[in-house]
Amino acid sequence: MPRYKAVIAYDGTNFNGFQIQPDKRTVQGEFENTLRRINNGKTITIFGSGRTDAGVHAEGQVIHFDFDQTRDLEKMRYALDTQTPKDIAVKSVEIVPEDFHARYHVVEKTYCFRVDIGKPRSPFKRFYATHFMYPVDVNKIRRALPDLLGTHDFTSFCASGTAIEDKVRTIYEAKLEVNEAEKELIFTFRGDGFLYKMIRILVGTLLKMGSGRIDETTIPQILAAKDRNFAGPTANPEGLYLMEVKYE
Amino acid sequence: MPRYKAVIAYDGTNFNGFQIQPDKRTVQGEFENTLRRINNGKTITIFGSGRTDAGVHAEGQVIHFDFDQTRDLEKMRYALDTQTPKDIAVKSVEIVPEDFHARYHVVEKTYCFRVDIGKPRSPFKRFYATHFMYPVDVNKIRRALPDLLGTHDFTSFCASGTAIEDKVRTIYEAKLEVNEAEKELIFTFRGDGFLYKMIRILVGTLLKMGSGRIDETTIPQILAAKDRNFAGPTANPEGLYLMEVKYE
Repeated sequence: MPRYKAVIAYDGTNFNGFQIQPDKRTVQGEFENTLRRINNGKTITIFGSGRTDAGVHAEGQVIHFDFDQTRDLEKMRYALDTQTPKDIAVKSVEIVPEDFHARYHVVEKTYCFRVDIGKPRSPFKRFYATHFMYPVDVNKIRRALPDLLGTHDFTSFCASGTAIEDKVRTIYEAKLEVNEAEKELIFTFRGDGFLYKMIRILVGTLLKMGSGRIDETTIPQILAAKDRNFAGPTANPEGLYLMEVKYE
Repeated sequence: MPRYKAVIAYDGTNFNGFQIQPDKRTVQGEFENTLRRINNGKTITIFGSGRTDAGVHAEGQVIHFDFDQTRDLEKMRYALDTQTPKDIAVKSVEIVPEDFHARYHVVEKTYCFRVDIGKPRSPFKRFYATHFMYPVDVNKIRRALPDLLGTHDFTSFCASGTAIEDKVRTIYEAKLEVNEAEKELIFTFRGDGFLYKMIRILVGTLLKMGSGRIDETTIPQILAAKDRNFAGPTANPEGLYLMEVKYE
């Protein structure tokens, strides 16, 4: 049976996250409802590159599924794009080898995090960026970012209660851009993988460094502590975007 | 009693327009609820520069109201901004002469209209831009825009059934910008005033010119006809933004 890989975008505002849950509206649930309709009522399970939490968005989530029909790929993409709800878009569809796995074969993920620093906060960004009300010294954050690069045990930046034991991850890129016109900070993190709530804890910590409430030179100590209590708060989900997932 | 002028922004998605209506959520209704709370339960009526329809947004709507209390202006702005719902922001508050009127003294208004030309449509823009699915020749639209400048009878671009008799308006600026990265067209119209649904009919007509279904040289004939049937369709409300209102 052919295996399909699809790149999808979604506005996470009205979803209870990616992963299917009974009686809750989820990205996986809605996508599988659409697949069931075009598969004569038979269920097709999709596999995502990873979960995203409630309120978290995606510009480039990757999924795979098996579908016993070889349609023209653009027709397939169009059918899925137009038949899924309007808060899901299907950007591309391709056929991949049968051993491709959207979750297990990930080699790199990129996330962005948008922060609204406008006064007052923009009513248009309330679901699409986190508002930060304190003055931010961008240079302090930029001083801290390089300390995150490379391979580290990120236990201090992982929500407690996670089942995953190996908390070593490699970050290839960590940058902060400032959009003056939009009154926005945009963080970008690229790495081989990220732990549960890791980006949100990184951003919560970096914003406290930018506002002077955590010393911006202390990333090495926070990492060395391997204790969630040493890092800053968890930023809200609505600023977070899964931008891109790469495979071997 | 001091008269206040305020500049407000709102996300029109969840409002039944600006103007107060019984049992419907409106910008005016929500704003007056907030004023009533800070005025010991007594009603204060607000006057806007004009109505906006359901789904239409504002970055710079102007209102005035009389309030028998002289607070520090920034405290007043902050109180109104934080106590109004999150889809309304209060950008500035000032005290104006008692004869200032937000509607009658307008000398210039600027509107923008955002069109999502991405394939697929962006799930993030479904409430913030109108999606247009056909190829657009931007040069055809830019050929048509200068024909709108100046003083004309805009009856052809006004929704029928309007009570206003004088349909002569002056347009000072009509431009189209292309945001390639965002896959967006952004129209800007600046004039002494606009008729009911005028911008949306202008955009609906211009998009048909851009896609080759209405000749782009025919604005003068459409204007001369003074008949709504000669113009194109009315574009959806969700791309429209009231950007700025100017006074004498």
